[in-house]
Amino acid sequence: MEVLYFCNAKIKAFKKFNRNSRCTIFDTRMRSINLFKKIFVMAILLCTFLSLLFWSDLGILNFTSLAVKTIPVKNKLCYVSMNDERIQMNNKTDLKMIYYITPTYPRPEQIPELTRLSHTLMHVPRIHWVIADDQPTCSEVVKNVLRKSGIPFTHIASPKPFHYRSNNFPRGVANRRAALDWIRHNVREGILYFGDDDNTIDLELFEEMRLTKKVSMFPVGLIGGYGVSSPIIKDGKVAGFFDSWPGSRTFPVDMAGFAVNIEYLTSTASMPYIAGHEEDKFLVSLGLKIEDIEPLADNCTKILVWHTRTVKFKKPTLKIKLDKITGETYKNFADLIKETSKLGMATIDSTSGTKPLITYDRKTYESLTDIL
Amino acid sequence: MEVLYFCNAKIKAFKKFNRNSRCTIFDTRMRSINLFKKIFVMAILLCTFLSLLFWSDLGILNFTSLAVKTIPVKNKLCYVSMNDERIQMNNKTDLKMIYYITPTYPRPEQIPELTRLSHTLMHVPRIHWVIADDQPTCSEVVKNVLRKSGIPFTHIASPKPFHYRSNNFPRGVANRRAALDWIRHNVREGILYFGDDDNTIDLELFEEMRLTKKVSMFPVGLIGGYGVSSPIIKDGKVAGFFDSWPGSRTFPVDMAGFAVNIEYLTSTASMPYIAGHEEDKFLVSLGLKIEDIEPLADNCTKILVWHTRTVKFKKPTLKIKLDKITGETYKNFADLIKETSKLGMATIDSTSGTKPLITYDRKTYESLTDIL
Repeated sequence: MEVLYFCNAKIKAFKKFNRNSRCTIFDTRMRSINLFKKIFVMAILLCTFLSLLFWSDLGILNFTSLAVKTIPVKNKLCYVSMNDERIQMNNKTDLKMIYYITPTYPRPEQIPELTRLSHTLMHVPRIHWVIADDQPTCSEVVKNVLRKSGIPFTHIASPKPFHYRSNNFPRGVANRRAALDWIRHNVREGILYFGDDDNTIDLELFEEMRLTKKVSMFPVGLIGGYGVSSPIIKDGKVAGFFDSWPGSRTFPVDMAGFAVNIEYLTSTASMPYIAGHEEDKFLVSLGLKIEDIEPLADNCTKILVWHTRTVKFKKPTLKIKLDKITGETYKNFADLIKETSKLGMATIDSTSGTKPLITYDRKTYESLTDIL
Repeated sequence: MEVLYFCNAKIKAFKKFNRNSRCTIFDTRMRSINLFKKIFVMAILLCTFLSLLFWSDLGILNFTSLAVKTIPVKNKLCYVSMNDERIQMNNKTDLKMIYYITPTYPRPEQIPELTRLSHTLMHVPRIHWVIADDQPTCSEVVKNVLRKSGIPFTHIASPKPFHYRSNNFPRGVANRRAALDWIRHNVREGILYFGDDDNTIDLELFEEMRLTKKVSMFPVGLIGGYGVSSPIIKDGKVAGFFDSWPGSRTFPVDMAGFAVNIEYLTSTASMPYIAGHEEDKFLVSLGLKIEDIEPLADNCTKILVWHTRTVKFKKPTLKIKLDKITGETYKNFADLIKETSKLGMATIDSTSGTKPLITYDRKTYESLTDIL
């Protein structure tokens, strides 16, 4: 808008000049006209340059994703564990492996989210958890959750492109792209599923999606204005979609509403940075036809996955001088404060923030030394 | 406040009358004084009566809970399953049973919440899940989650007292009281833990809490203004509390922050209907002393349980004439709509609500017959 306004202002200035200059001598007039012509051309060039620069922010055309591809993203492969360390898990090799792709990002709820999701996945045989974390370094606390689960896993640090940091970027795309990239280079067969860290998935769905030949689809609960998003089935085939936001999408479905057989993952498959269109454009990029979709969950009559969302916790900053809590007496408390900070649930600062109180016998104290 | 204001107004009126009446004759004055005396006494009596009537709303004293006890609550024991139907679960009988008390209430997120919590509990040997649901009837969908888990369970329908329906009642108290009541009458030994349906709990904590002799305590993450709520440990003993809301509580801890050995559950143990004071008053009612508390989670240095909360989904009302979707062609779609309604994720109404659209080939249609 600002760019357009700038252009219009230039045009107006040019017209105004034309009107006022009639009373001046011809030579001066010509020189001035030439000067303004140059300014006008420069303004047009500047407009074009700025338009190109901010084009991707409009987020309408596929051009966006092409533009972003040119911005280098430094992904880091943190750790890959191919071993299934779960005891009493029946991992028959004739079952197809499920690659469960979870984009995540550091926030106070990250570790509890991943912890409870790990409890779900720990029940599933032949599963490989691909976690792509939206930060530049390999998170120690995320790795701990993965290790503790005993599930085979791939841990990737995949920060979103710098370009998107300050904008209303589509969350999770950089992470899913990084995970897809790892799968393309390391996996030949299996099932691909995008499961966010805050979604809830019923164990039944895993055994259903394992049978996906090309692309399977199923209802997702707690979505939009209809309470559910699902394909509509007619005689065992997908005949349309029930989703409160059509958004001119060929496949108006949620990210959690489909699974893909990795053998069907073509080289052209890609996910663009277009908020709301990630699923659709990805499915279109696979060359998927509506008649190819395999409906699951009892012909899309059961809800076995939900788009649950977790309330964001406001991370507090606490004014605590950790270096003053020394010696054995205060060690446990100091360790708890360090753990809270490490898990990202509070920022500890020695100079600013809330001065925490300590309670003992229904009274509050300002300092540990008052009670300990 | 209104009652007090009324009293003050009466006193003012009385004083004013005293000033103005000096110029009138003595007899009239005396009669008027007597009349006003009567009015004043009546006003005082009315004030006292109103105070008594609304006393429980102030929610300060224990008197509240006594008052509520007189209001009958009809709890219903829906189903008890003592069988552990989990395959490959090591249920050594020398392990103490954990009674995991979960208050819940019907809402769009209820089934996904209970589903993912069931995935956590399914990993825990020797556990009995006591679900107390805030509704007058036994929910079929809640029972399905319980059955599916294979865990031994008790299903109670425990609606909150009528008295609290329209007020800012403390959520979950009626349910926890009903569960405690069932435990008192049916269980002799084991460990009691209050785990809400939206909390997240690490599997490690179960094995720790199983060793509770009287009352054990541990840190809870994502609480209040400090990011964590925890006892403060000095030489292996609790020496105070770290919680951003002291609230004049003897034990300023979260509901998820302690476990109780059932043998220590005295007959006087009770939980009042006082928002914010449920945990504290319950622990005080056990006769607990600070020196009796057993710190867990590595002397309260690790966070193994989190007060995660789920975003409330706004349940939509959809205008769908279900009786018109007949025959085999539309059966699957009709079944999905019924399932969505049964799981409480949308209200289906034949006369009012949002008229849902159907999408096919990037176009939207108003009726099923347009595409099917």
